[in-house]
Amino acid sequence: MAQKPSIPKGTRDFKPIEVAKRNYIFDVVKKHFQTFGFQPIETPSFENSETLLGKYGDEGDRLIFKILNSGDYLSKVDEQTFNSRDSNSLTYKISEKALRYDLTVPFARYVVMHQNEIDFPFKRYQIQPVWRADRPQKGRFREFYQCDADVVGSYSLLQEVELIQLYDAVFTDLKLEGVTIKLNNRKILAGIAEVIGAKENFIDFTVALDKLDKIGEDGVRKEMLDKGISGSAFERAAPLLALGGSNLDQLSVLSGILKDSEEGIKGVRELSFIISTLEELGLQSANLKVDVTLARGLNYYTGAIIEVAGPKNVAMGSIGGGGRYDDLTGVFGLKDVSGVGISFGLDRIYLVLEELDLFPDAIDRSLEVLCVNFGEKEALAALKLIYQLRKSGIKSDLYPSSAKMQKQMKYANNRNVPYVVLIGEKELKDDSFVVKNMEKGSQKTYDLANVKAFIEDL
Amino acid sequence: MAQKPSIPKGTRDFKPIEVAKRNYIFDVVKKHFQTFGFQPIETPSFENSETLLGKYGDEGDRLIFKILNSGDYLSKVDEQTFNSRDSNSLTYKISEKALRYDLTVPFARYVVMHQNEIDFPFKRYQIQPVWRADRPQKGRFREFYQCDADVVGSYSLLQEVELIQLYDAVFTDLKLEGVTIKLNNRKILAGIAEVIGAKENFIDFTVALDKLDKIGEDGVRKEMLDKGISGSAFERAAPLLALGGSNLDQLSVLSGILKDSEEGIKGVRELSFIISTLEELGLQSANLKVDVTLARGLNYYTGAIIEVAGPKNVAMGSIGGGGRYDDLTGVFGLKDVSGVGISFGLDRIYLVLEELDLFPDAIDRSLEVLCVNFGEKEALAALKLIYQLRKSGIKSDLYPSSAKMQKQMKYANNRNVPYVVLIGEKELKDDSFVVKNMEKGSQKTYDLANVKAFIEDL
Repeated sequence: MAQKPSIPKGTRDFKPIEVAKRNYIFDVVKKHFQTFGFQPIETPSFENSETLLGKYGDEGDRLIFKILNSGDYLSKVDEQTFNSRDSNSLTYKISEKALRYDLTVPFARYVVMHQNEIDFPFKRYQIQPVWRADRPQKGRFREFYQCDADVVGSYSLLQEVELIQLYDAVFTDLKLEGVTIKLNNRKILAGIAEVIGAKENFIDFTVALDKLDKIGEDGVRKEMLDKGISGSAFERAAPLLALGGSNLDQLSVLSGILKDSEEGIKGVRELSFIISTLEELGLQSANLKVDVTLARGLNYYTGAIIEVAGPKNVAMGSIGGGGRYDDLTGVFGLKDVSGVGISFGLDRIYLVLEELDLFPDAIDRSLEVLCVNFGEKEALAALKLIYQLRKSGIKSDLYPSSAKMQKQMKYANNRNVPYVVLIGEKELKDDSFVVKNMEKGSQKTYDLANVKAFIEDL
Repeated sequence: MAQKPSIPKGTRDFKPIEVAKRNYIFDVVKKHFQTFGFQPIETPSFENSETLLGKYGDEGDRLIFKILNSGDYLSKVDEQTFNSRDSNSLTYKISEKALRYDLTVPFARYVVMHQNEIDFPFKRYQIQPVWRADRPQKGRFREFYQCDADVVGSYSLLQEVELIQLYDAVFTDLKLEGVTIKLNNRKILAGIAEVIGAKENFIDFTVALDKLDKIGEDGVRKEMLDKGISGSAFERAAPLLALGGSNLDQLSVLSGILKDSEEGIKGVRELSFIISTLEELGLQSANLKVDVTLARGLNYYTGAIIEVAGPKNVAMGSIGGGGRYDDLTGVFGLKDVSGVGISFGLDRIYLVLEELDLFPDAIDRSLEVLCVNFGEKEALAALKLIYQLRKSGIKSDLYPSSAKMQKQMKYANNRNVPYVVLIGEKELKDDSFVVKNMEKGSQKTYDLANVKAFIEDL
C-alpha cells in the first residue's frame, strides 16, 4: 500500500535553509530592480502551445514540456493521425498547452496583449520558474528559476549603461566583488566578418570565435577552416584574438580594422558610448571588459551583447548575460519594439556565494527565542511572553510539549536558536523568566512584567 | 505569420500593480509565519504521477494536469492499450508526471523523504502555485497560489492555539479587522451522530449539517431524511442548530448532550482547552466562535476544524481554513505523524482588501523620482544624481531619451511619480537641480554637490 516516495529526475526539493539562501539572493536582486525603476509582472506557468512552439528552434520544441488535454482527449483525434501512431503528430492533437520554457517569449506575448495599458518605455522584471525536458546533469535541472530585467520601447543606449550599473549594484550588494562584465556588439561581429571576407559564413565565424576561451587560437582556426572560412580570412581576424590594453585602446584598434564596414563602425560607436559613459559614472566593484569574441545567442541579439563572469578565483561559467534584440514582439504582430535586457543565473550565483562563504551569518537563524515547556501552567506563562515577542517581530516559539529537558535543548541546538527561555515553577512564582545565551553559555533573569527589557537586550 | 496572442483559459497575467498587491499580502503572511517559528520549504511543480493520483478522490484525479512524456512516447505503449483507444488507460502509459494539485500531499511526501534530516516538531510554511483542470469561473482559476502553514509531529493542542493566534496576527496586520474564526472538532461531530443514532450515516449527516448556512434548518432536515436519517434523529440534533450564547456556554450545553459519547466528550474537552487558552491570551482583532455545523473536508480532519470568514460587511466565502489530520504521512509509509495546519485564501483576501480599500496608499509607487532628459550632457549629470539616489534605495530613473517635455511629464503622471527632477542647461551651469513636487505643484532647487539634502527631504 505505502509508496516509497521520490521526485521526478531533474527536480528538487528545497529545504528551509536552501529557501532562505535563495530568497536572500532574490531579495537583493529585486531590491535593485526596483530602485532602478523596474516593475514586476507574472505570467501563467503554462501557455497555449502555439505561443511557445517554433520560438526556440527544433531542439527547443523537443525540450518543451507539453500538458495532456483533460478528459477524453482521444475522442478529438482523427483516425488517420491516430493510426499513424506517430508521437509527434499525435502531440498536436492531444496537447494544447505547454510549460513556460523561458521568460522572454511570455514577456513578448504579454507586451503585445497589454500594449494599450503599458506606458513605454516599459521596464519590467520577472522572477519565475521555467521548465525544460533537458537531460538532467550536475547543475542542470528540469525546473529552475529565471530572473530577468528588460526594457522595451527604447532605443537609447543609456539602457545598456543602466543594465550594467544594475549588475554592478546587485553583485556589490551580494558582496560578490570582482565580477567581470564582458561587452560586445553584434554589429562589431558583423563588421569583422565583412572586412575579413567571411560575411557569407557569419554564423559559423562567430560560433567558432565564441569558443576561443575553450579551444584556443589553434582550435578556432581549425574550426573556421572546417566550416569553409579561408585561411587568409582567419589570418586577417587573428589580431582580434590578441586584442589587449584598455577598453578604449581596444576600441581604437577596432575602429582602424573596421574602418571600411559601416555596420562595424556603428557597433564600435555604440560600444564606445556605453563604455565611456560608464567610465564617467564609475562602477562600484565590477570590472568592465570589451570582448570581441563574445557572441552568446547570436541569432537573437542585434546590438549589445553582455555576459558576466564570476570572480577569477571561482571556476564557474557565466553568472548572467543579456543584450539588445531589436524585434522582440514582431512574432506576435507588434513591429519595431526594441528590447534590451539582462538575466541573473540564480543557481550559479548560489553556488558561488556558497563556495566563497558569502551568505550572511544569520541566514540559518529561523528561530531567535525558544521557550522550554515545563508543563501546562508554565507553558501558558511562556505563551504570554511569546505573544509579546512576536508582536515585536522576534521569531519565537514554545516547545509544544513538556518533554524531557534534554530533548528540548537538543531541538534548540539543532535549530541553532541563540536564546532559550526558561519559565519553571520557581520563575512562575517569582513572575520572572531566565534567558540562556546559547553561544556564551551565560544566563540572565528578567521580570515577566517587563518583557521590554529583554527585547531591548536582544 | 504573426499570431494574435492569448493565454489559456483559467490563467492570468499579473500586471505590476497586481503583483505589488499580491506580494504585499504574501509578505505580511510570511513575516508572521516566521515570527511564529515556521520555516519555508519548496517542492517541485510537478511530481511523479503515483505521488498525486488516488489522493484526492476520482474527481481530483480527473482535475490533475498530466504532463506528456518527452520523445517518442508512443513507442512504450503496448498494442492492446493503444488499440483500446481509451484515453484513461493510455494516460498511464504516456504520462508519468503531473502538476501539483495542492501543497499538502507534496508536503507529506517531503516529510517522508526527508524524515532523517527534519527536527520534529516541524513547522513548515509553503507558498507556491497549484494547478487544477477545473471549469474556470468567476474567482476560480486553473492556476492559483496556496499559502499553507502546518506543524507535523506534535499532538499538542497548543498548536491549534498558535495557529489561531497566527490568523489573528496576519489579519490584524492586514488591517482586516473583525474576521470570525470558526472552530469545531470532528470528534464532536462524531459524538453528535452517535448520540442521535446516526452513526451509520455520519458523512451524510455532517455534509447536510455543513449546509445550514446555505439551505436553512428545513433544507438540512429534508437532506437528512433523503439520506435515510430518521426524523427522530433530526429532532434530537435540532437544538444544536440553534446553539447560542458564549463559546463556553455552548460547550457546556454540548457536554450535556454528548455525555454518553466518549468521543464526543473528548472533542468538547479539546475545543474547551483551545478556547479557554485563547481567552486567557486574548486576540487582537479576530472573533472566535464555536460552530458545531462546521465540517469542511471532513474525511480528512480528525480533530480541530477551523475556518475564517471575512468581516460581516463583505460578502465573500471563507478566506482561510484548516484543521488537524492525524495521519498525514501514512500513505507514504510513515505512520503516526500528526499534522495540523491552516491555509490562507490569497485570491479572496485580495478581493476583500480591494473592496475595503485596505491596500497601503503607496503600493502603486513603483518610481519615486523621475529625471527629465534634456539631452546628452544633461542626462549624464542626471545619471550621476540617480546613481546616488539609487544607492540610498530610492526608486529613481531617467527618461531614456530627450523627448518633448510634454511626453516625459505624461509618462511621469502615468507612473504616478511624486517627484520630477529637472536638470537643464541652466542647472548644469549652476551645478544645481530642480525638484518638482507633483502633488503640491511646488518646486525647490538643490545643489548637485549636496544630493543628501534632497534625500533627507524625501
